Amino acid sequence: MTRKLRDRRRFLKESSSLAGLVLAPSVLAVAPRFASGAPPAPGANDANDLASVLYGERSRFVTTTRIVEGRSHRDVPAVRPTPHRPSARTPLGESVGMITPTSLHFTTQHHYGIPDINPSEHKLMIHGLVDRPLVWTVDELKRLPFVSRIYFLECVGNRPNPRAATVADTHGRMACSEWTGVPLSVLLREASLKNGAKWLIAEGADGGKHMKSVSLPKAWDDVMVAFGQNGEPVRPDHGFPLRLIVPGHEGIYNVKWLRRIKIVDQPYLSFQEHSRFISEYPKTQADTYEYGPSSVITYPSGTHQLSGQGSYVITGLAWSGGGAVSKVEVSTDGGRTYAEAELAGPTLPKAHSRFFLPWRWNGEEAMLQSRCTDENGIVQPSEAEYLNYWNFTRRELYGTIQSKLGHCNWMQPWKVNHDGSVSNGLEPIEVVADVHG
Amino acid sequence: MTRKLRDRRRFLKESSSLAGLVLAPSVLAVAPRFASGAPPAPGANDANDLASVLYGERSRFVTTTRIVEGRSHRDVPAVRPTPHRPSARTPLGESVGMITPTSLHFTTQHHYGIPDINPSEHKLMIHGLVDRPLVWTVDELKRLPFVSRIYFLECVGNRPNPRAATVADTHGRMACSEWTGVPLSVLLREASLKNGAKWLIAEGADGGKHMKSVSLPKAWDDVMVAFGQNGEPVRPDHGFPLRLIVPGHEGIYNVKWLRRIKIVDQPYLSFQEHSRFISEYPKTQADTYEYGPSSVITYPSGTHQLSGQGSYVITGLAWSGGGAVSKVEVSTDGGRTYAEAELAGPTLPKAHSRFFLPWRWNGEEAMLQSRCTDENGIVQPSEAEYLNYWNFTRRELYGTIQSKLGHCNWMQPWKVNHDGSVSNGLEPIEVVADVHG
Repeated sequence: MTRKLRDRRRFLKESSSLAGLVLAPSVLAVAPRFASGAPPAPGANDANDLASVLYGERSRFVTTTRIVEGRSHRDVPAVRPTPHRPSARTPLGESVGMITPTSLHFTTQHHYGIPDINPSEHKLMIHGLVDRPLVWTVDELKRLPFVSRIYFLECVGNRPNPRAATVADTHGRMACSEWTGVPLSVLLREASLKNGAKWLIAEGADGGKHMKSVSLPKAWDDVMVAFGQNGEPVRPDHGFPLRLIVPGHEGIYNVKWLRRIKIVDQPYLSFQEHSRFISEYPKTQADTYEYGPSSVITYPSGTHQLSGQGSYVITGLAWSGGGAVSKVEVSTDGGRTYAEAELAGPTLPKAHSRFFLPWRWNGEEAMLQSRCTDENGIVQPSEAEYLNYWNFTRRELYGTIQSKLGHCNWMQPWKVNHDGSVSNGLEPIEVVADVHG
Repeated sequence: MTRKLRDRRRFLKESSSLAGLVLAPSVLAVAPRFASGAPPAPGANDANDLASVLYGERSRFVTTTRIVEGRSHRDVPAVRPTPHRPSARTPLGESVGMITPTSLHFTTQHHYGIPDINPSEHKLMIHGLVDRPLVWTVDELKRLPFVSRIYFLECVGNRPNPRAATVADTHGRMACSEWTGVPLSVLLREASLKNGAKWLIAEGADGGKHMKSVSLPKAWDDVMVAFGQNGEPVRPDHGFPLRLIVPGHEGIYNVKWLRRIKIVDQPYLSFQEHSRFISEYPKTQADTYEYGPSSVITYPSGTHQLSGQGSYVITGLAWSGGGAVSKVEVSTDGGRTYAEAELAGPTLPKAHSRFFLPWRWNGEEAMLQSRCTDENGIVQPSEAEYLNYWNFTRRELYGTIQSKLGHCNWMQPWKVNHDGSVSNGLEPIEVVADVHG
């Protein structure tokens, strides 16, 4: 009782203390409900509605969506989503942090649409060069040991591009999630491999039966059969109910709607690879598996507008298929000088790392670019370094032979103009369309 | 060309190889669209629809929602959401991984509903014992250095309870997200503190003007003003556009819709604390700030049903306000013996850690419980150890004086019955309602 009285006195003291305070009206302003302002965003109900209490939604003032139009890296006409090709890119220009919201995670290359799978009817089979061919239901898989890891996924179509307007155009085919699932090693041990087993072919339950070959050393290392993404079941556009996760490898290895793993003696080119992704460099070459170190500035980036001279933070994402990011450097003068950026969060292997560098813009033109070094000491190249290493011309780099390029991890500069507008910093190029790409 | 021919031959070889394979029909089965099955879940459209391509949604077979009914820890009548009290718990019994999907993140204690704030009109002021009172717009805050960290949030109402049916009833007032925002230390340096500054009062823009006192040593350490949660703007039910994040402290410290920080000389009890949360132990006592080590088994837990003898994984979440989880042990015999569980993912300070233990159920009754040890070597207590330490009776623990308890981090056992059903493993108790709590 004495304590309560003391608390009451303390409260009264606080009240009088706060009463002496004059707040500017704008500080106290709270927008009335459904006042004029942004249009309702997809799924943005009143947060007090029962539907939103059951399954929460965004503010109606937050309208960011995935990007389904715009020029592809090949400068072909805009690809609009259709029932058979619901592709969409991550809106990286508005991204914060390391995790990509699942609703904004890029989704691409569905050759025959997204299957509507009842998980109680779905199964995963392992067969081929095994002693015990096995079939698991989804529920059975969830009774096995599992791991939960934060990994990036990146489509091989991601690349710097002088014709791109935004960072979603150049790098929006990438995202980062927490994936939860069974290590493939657990399933391989159960099935018991025969002599001569060296590769596997993973197959999805989509209409196109997408398949991909994965080497067994990689499969034993860190490949998983994921049933969870960012704390909930993997969603339909990301492979519900099961997706193969092949950390650090090209996105296409991460087979969605996984239903079958065949253990084989060598890599195979699947129908989809052969008919759609064929290049003169078979994708089974060692040097095309694992992404090297890369990074890109997400703010400020193409189409952003600085509001005037003053303090900003330059921020972006860095990643490497070879492990963790160890260092990110940022240049504001097109690569003549670099300053080391700060890493804003945990630096986990084969995950996005968010970096930033405080920057004072003096109103002059500036050329912003970032450079990643991974834990193996490998450094992301500039365009010139990449051209030199592979002995390509710029016309080749952005033109006819790009299907041969493999991973395109050179730097993407963004130019800050006198008026604060931000545009693509790569030298323009006229290119012949790539009919093979 | 030669390569292409070789690839074609390889493809043909693969085709014939796969053609020899006979798949069971069930393996190939894909449910037709909108076949009979689960009812549509909130927000679950066809994944091929344009709306879902723009902002992705869950499978219609995934129907988990936040929980808005059920008994509270005080055994008071079920609290249903109203426009002024849209509270909801995290469905922990179906959780996977470490990250909580933002749509399923618990939300509680909104005394006057969730404000609908236009971020372009919202401001944050720092004043009181400072040399330079300052006001920032949301855009201005985003031009400052930031951090991005994965932290748990837990309401002080979370606790083991013999009358609870599910793990969402006992521990569903908790979740874990990646939070992105400005370290409060950056703002404190800008404002420059005066002599005598020892505490701050943070105030929200809700109708109830929720306030909480935070000590300055904590504020300088790791408190942040978050604008991002799991890669997108903080949502309305979690504090859009700005939320104070006080890692490892009681949920109520993490002031939503943050608009004001007053630097003061001592802790104050706010109106909401005084009128609603008052206890005979002022919340400003040192020992009630920071959560100790805790853990709970999420599967199998109350109301789950095992499908028969065989292999399972026991899994759950562990966390500590004092730092990272270093060890989790699981008992299947009510605490007589323990086995060390595996940690399935990264163990980050003040974040959830997902653990699991493979377990073979032999059909006998079993009593499952988990025990967390944090990096400081502090061990989560059993109910008996907790009672002994605080000198409480069980009637007091679950009854009249529970508002005095502070943090309730003793273990919650789940009982597996002969028929595979799972129920609360705490000894039942009859309790007088707590009129003060």
